[in-house]
Amino acid sequence: MLEPRYLTGKKAEIDQFIDQFDTFLFDCDGVLWSGDHLFPGTAEVLDKLRSQGKRLVFVTNNSTKSRADYKKKFDKLGIPCKEEEVFGSSYSAAIYISRILRLAPPKNKVFVLGESGIEHELASEGVPFVGGTSPSLRRDIEPEDFGSIADGSALDPDVGAVLLGLDFHVNYLKLSHAFAYLQRGARFLATNVDSTLPAAHSLFPGAGSVGAPVVKAYGAEPVAFGKPSQAMMDAIEGKFQLDRKRTCMVGDRLNTDIQFGIEGGLGGTLMVLTGVSKKDEFLSEGSPVVPSAWVDKLGDLLG
Amino acid sequence: MLEPRYLTGKKAEIDQFIDQFDTFLFDCDGVLWSGDHLFPGTAEVLDKLRSQGKRLVFVTNNSTKSRADYKKKFDKLGIPCKEEEVFGSSYSAAIYISRILRLAPPKNKVFVLGESGIEHELASEGVPFVGGTSPSLRRDIEPEDFGSIADGSALDPDVGAVLLGLDFHVNYLKLSHAFAYLQRGARFLATNVDSTLPAAHSLFPGAGSVGAPVVKAYGAEPVAFGKPSQAMMDAIEGKFQLDRKRTCMVGDRLNTDIQFGIEGGLGGTLMVLTGVSKKDEFLSEGSPVVPSAWVDKLGDLLG
Repeated sequence: MLEPRYLTGKKAEIDQFIDQFDTFLFDCDGVLWSGDHLFPGTAEVLDKLRSQGKRLVFVTNNSTKSRADYKKKFDKLGIPCKEEEVFGSSYSAAIYISRILRLAPPKNKVFVLGESGIEHELASEGVPFVGGTSPSLRRDIEPEDFGSIADGSALDPDVGAVLLGLDFHVNYLKLSHAFAYLQRGARFLATNVDSTLPAAHSLFPGAGSVGAPVVKAYGAEPVAFGKPSQAMMDAIEGKFQLDRKRTCMVGDRLNTDIQFGIEGGLGGTLMVLTGVSKKDEFLSEGSPVVPSAWVDKLGDLLG
Repeated sequence: MLEPRYLTGKKAEIDQFIDQFDTFLFDCDGVLWSGDHLFPGTAEVLDKLRSQGKRLVFVTNNSTKSRADYKKKFDKLGIPCKEEEVFGSSYSAAIYISRILRLAPPKNKVFVLGESGIEHELASEGVPFVGGTSPSLRRDIEPEDFGSIADGSALDPDVGAVLLGLDFHVNYLKLSHAFAYLQRGARFLATNVDSTLPAAHSLFPGAGSVGAPVVKAYGAEPVAFGKPSQAMMDAIEGKFQLDRKRTCMVGDRLNTDIQFGIEGGLGGTLMVLTGVSKKDEFLSEGSPVVPSAWVDKLGDLLG
């Protein structure tokens, strides 16, 4: 296996690395920022790449935000960004449901476990949905709910799919609804299956963990759209008409970002150490996923 | 593999089967009742066995109820039962923590994901705990919680173990606390890992599903006490001084109840079809878990 190149502090090697690519796919959390903390040098690195004519795509597994929400986050942090440059797992799921799955009406509603970002992206593709942020499900389960879920009277007969995403308002009532729809034959989808969510310089339960009760109860895995799923790479390629060999994926997670780039046959992958994975994980003998290059932090690309 | 004996409608075979045993371990939900619905014949069968001098033990993975709660459930349904005859996964976990794990003070508190049943059993063994039904954690996570969980200021420094059980009030805040304690080195325990909970003639997410987010985020399995864990069989044997060869496990789930009895080396296992598992599962060629006998419903033991 090729040793990854360490670029921090090596200006000539950095320039040579960047010259290989026309497009950079960026993971966001753990790469550009952590939670609400913008890493030093992020804006300058993006400026440098744009000034060299590089195309930037911000690829995120965060399902709680729509592309419009994500653009707002960039604005707030003072980083220039266009909504079209954002590609999220919710958008990827919405495209799949509307253009590939094409559920036949009337049984074409999607039960959502997640926040408003998923709802906005489904709406943008004209996909009807229930659940999600509906206040009717933001409550404790009551004894009578067991009966009405079991006999279906509490359920929407037009639900044909369950879509799991990160839901900060997850509760037993929503989990029971999702499980009941699956037992009645609904298709099983997830925006992404990230086990953890980086925040406040620590780790919290990610979308894959929040939805794990439904997976465990039902006993089958959902079709997932976030990195490293190649369904997402195909959708990105289709939308941006990119040359994979002239594209580089930049990320902080070996088993999502870097694996996503390698499996997608991209020309390169660049690892930063400001997020989840540690350098020992890819420098150690026999590591299953190894980036083509790495820097301590994104700002090091300024040289 | 031995074909299981079908006893329904065969009075002589039933009597012969019962004669083999001094003690019957009963699973409850799906065997004696389903939710709040008592199966016909349950009280009569228990009476018949008691009148023949059999010892009865009610072994339940339901972690939401203490032994005292369970006794109340028997009372309400009109079935005679003594608190000492009940053996639950919460009690089993409490015994393990207090008598085997023996966490050294002051770091001997247990963070509970679960209902009051777990709290009562921990209290009965003198184990200090936090979390559980505390109103302070029955709320949505707020942006500032991420920081205070990450820096530990929201956490109790004396927590040395996390105990997962069935929590009908699970939320992201509790899951984040449990995950944070584990990242800080807490021991990882679960009352049981049942994927589903039978209720209202249907299936709902069980303790193993409700706790799955913590397992997935942390990336390791807890030590579990419910059936089929033999930690529970050892505890039952210790308490009741039973002769395993003269003991029969009665249950509705192959992969918990029946496996529990087989792995425990009991003299027999009896399957009923009023719960989770279907007869096709153990009658089909190559089934990994096969009971020694089966009836359609417990009441069939009346002959």
